[in-house]
Amino acid sequence: MTPGDVPEGESTVERRPPRLASPDEAAEVARLLHDFNVEFDTPTPDVEVLAARLRVLLAGEDTFAILAGSPAVAVALVTLRPNVWYEGLVALLDELYVEPELRGRGIGSAMIGLLLDTAVAWGIDLIEINVDEADVDAQRFYERHGFSAGAVDSTERAFYFSRDLTS
Amino acid sequence: MTPGDVPEGESTVERRPPRLASPDEAAEVARLLHDFNVEFDTPTPDVEVLAARLRVLLAGEDTFAILAGSPAVAVALVTLRPNVWYEGLVALLDELYVEPELRGRGIGSAMIGLLLDTAVAWGIDLIEINVDEADVDAQRFYERHGFSAGAVDSTERAFYFSRDLTS
Repeated sequence: MTPGDVPEGESTVERRPPRLASPDEAAEVARLLHDFNVEFDTPTPDVEVLAARLRVLLAGEDTFAILAGSPAVAVALVTLRPNVWYEGLVALLDELYVEPELRGRGIGSAMIGLLLDTAVAWGIDLIEINVDEADVDAQRFYERHGFSAGAVDSTERAFYFSRDLTS
Repeated sequence: MTPGDVPEGESTVERRPPRLASPDEAAEVARLLHDFNVEFDTPTPDVEVLAARLRVLLAGEDTFAILAGSPAVAVALVTLRPNVWYEGLVALLDELYVEPELRGRGIGSAMIGLLLDTAVAWGIDLIEINVDEADVDAQRFYERHGFSAGAVDSTERAFYFSRDLTS
């Protein structure tokens, strides 16, 4: 093996930094989002449906994804929108997933690092995340990365509410 | 007075349904959002700054506002974004404000009604709202209108986290 070679079956994730996903990598993003849903027993569209949507979304201006490893073992999905309280855009981290056997190695932190660098480069003013109430580990992870519960300028936590109009 | 006339100083809010705001109504939307921040002791940009942003946002495709009354006494502000889990768009109700002396008269419910009608007409698949943990009245209000805490397909509540990159 020469330096840079990767043993068969091993991901390059620990040697290469995470990257922004191109629209050509929609299938990789879709595969990991599908794994995420399966792991957490969430109903999930077919991988092909997700991949088709992601090919469109990743080619547009409102969505980007971060991948780590080749083959990819971690994904972050981010959507952007305007907001009246900020000059710049607001980014919502819709999903962050690292394959179970590779957790605890700093991959998630490296992905948040690229998210923050990308946000600064793109003039994004606020990053938002919804975290399950019981997932204290995830809450601590985001707090370590500078996030806090509740709205800006408020010490009060806020709950995420939603209404699905498709069912 | 003929029917339809409004005594000086009285709003038409209780006789006319809420409406989608045009970009020309940006100043009205801005005035109410500013009142909202002042009431809740939240730092707020100048009304002129908000109005200038809203003239742009309301003319675009990612933001709409609902107003009630003339002069307006209630506002809702909604931003749209794509989401991989849905074919259609996801709407976030960023703000809903009714002037204090007019609360409890069904104005907020009428505005949520127009929000839901608009969402259906525009093919929006999900509506999201962040509600302060302590604001049990608001949580009950949204639950009455079909919203629930936590993600879709989950019984678990989720907290809203954010990181402001401007400070």
